[in-house]
Amino acid sequence: MNGDLGGKIKALVFDVFGTVVDWRGSLIREVEGLSRAKGVALDAARFADDWRAGYRPAMQRVRSGELPWTRIDDLHRMILDGLLTKHGIAGLSEAEKVGLNRAWHRLAPWPDAVEGLTRLKRRFIIGTLSNGNVGLLVDMAKHAGLPWDVVLSAELAHHYKPDPEAYRMPPDILGLAPSQVMLVAAHPDDLAAAAREGLKTGYVPRPLEHGPGGKPHDITGRSFDVVAGDFNELAARLGA
Amino acid sequence: MNGDLGGKIKALVFDVFGTVVDWRGSLIREVEGLSRAKGVALDAARFADDWRAGYRPAMQRVRSGELPWTRIDDLHRMILDGLLTKHGIAGLSEAEKVGLNRAWHRLAPWPDAVEGLTRLKRRFIIGTLSNGNVGLLVDMAKHAGLPWDVVLSAELAHHYKPDPEAYRMPPDILGLAPSQVMLVAAHPDDLAAAAREGLKTGYVPRPLEHGPGGKPHDITGRSFDVVAGDFNELAARLGA
Repeated sequence: MNGDLGGKIKALVFDVFGTVVDWRGSLIREVEGLSRAKGVALDAARFADDWRAGYRPAMQRVRSGELPWTRIDDLHRMILDGLLTKHGIAGLSEAEKVGLNRAWHRLAPWPDAVEGLTRLKRRFIIGTLSNGNVGLLVDMAKHAGLPWDVVLSAELAHHYKPDPEAYRMPPDILGLAPSQVMLVAAHPDDLAAAAREGLKTGYVPRPLEHGPGGKPHDITGRSFDVVAGDFNELAARLGA
Repeated sequence: MNGDLGGKIKALVFDVFGTVVDWRGSLIREVEGLSRAKGVALDAARFADDWRAGYRPAMQRVRSGELPWTRIDDLHRMILDGLLTKHGIAGLSEAEKVGLNRAWHRLAPWPDAVEGLTRLKRRFIIGTLSNGNVGLLVDMAKHAGLPWDVVLSAELAHHYKPDPEAYRMPPDILGLAPSQVMLVAAHPDDLAAAAREGLKTGYVPRPLEHGPGGKPHDITGRSFDVVAGDFNELAARLGA
């Protein structure tokens, strides 16, 4: 069945934060570096988790219409400003805050990501489908060597995932049927929302996304077109 | 001065039809192939030139508001349908017309393009800024091996060049100042419109764009930040 599936799919679009890159490990390293440089004692893991925890509520303010369309870069900065106060970090210059906020542009890929994407790119159009803004995703790709054919973002639809408009955009803009496009993600809810718009789904669990103590997603009752342990296994399953 | 310029620029965006790819030579080969396959006598060069000649008037109908936003793929098809009648070509199936229209997705790059872009990509973000739609540009890049970091199109601004909105989009979406972005094009009018929005300009004449008998553009009184004979020379001038 999977071999057949590979023949029908033309494009794979990837969730990015957590699926392609290890946002948590990367942020911890960035925060630890800043902590050393500034001589500030800081729980870097908690800081990273708090920053990420602010993400969904901030997007929800956009999704609900409370905020006009606002890029993730700007949402990350709003969350950061609150966190600096909460964690008692004073004395960062504006340039240092801008630099820290750009940590999200420098996230490191999971070890299999570049190799697996390079392999998938030989057979499929590969792109992002992230809530991250285009500029962030382009900087990240340059930094991490992610070989995207196309950088697609919720920014182009002005609708954050899981709004349906975000999933309708990739097939529309690429001139493909929804069933010719697969979303690859480590998050079952993201995949379920994509499936409701007719996209195919590839589930690649990333058990370390939330650190060594993270719990796997409960996928009872969920179904996906493909499940793979990493991007190399995904390539094998899709015949790439 | 050019060395300095390279240090200030972060992203190069390229006009595509004529600047990166040889639309005319490619279309002639496609039309000749169809002509042989269907046993129809046809002036392929005139067919190619007529197809391209329909492009500006069709975009003008969108720019003026006579047509709602319409992708180049659909404008190309509208022009093609008229041309088939004009050139007396009957008996193409719908699939053959669709296939011929997709000739624009398969245009061949100028001989220096892939090498020069690969070199420029080491130092700069490289992307398209074309009136061609995203899907067309992604297919073309896969076909021709164009190593874009980002595929930007007038489609994302819903304004065709030379509308100012089309040139404001790349710096905005990449989070850059207009002066950190250079448009590279073989067309002085395109570059002049970009300069009016604060972008830097790189002129790469393509004297064969309109065939061996084509006239070079008159650039009397024009000025560009860089002029280069091809993309390799452009890379050298920008320190890449």
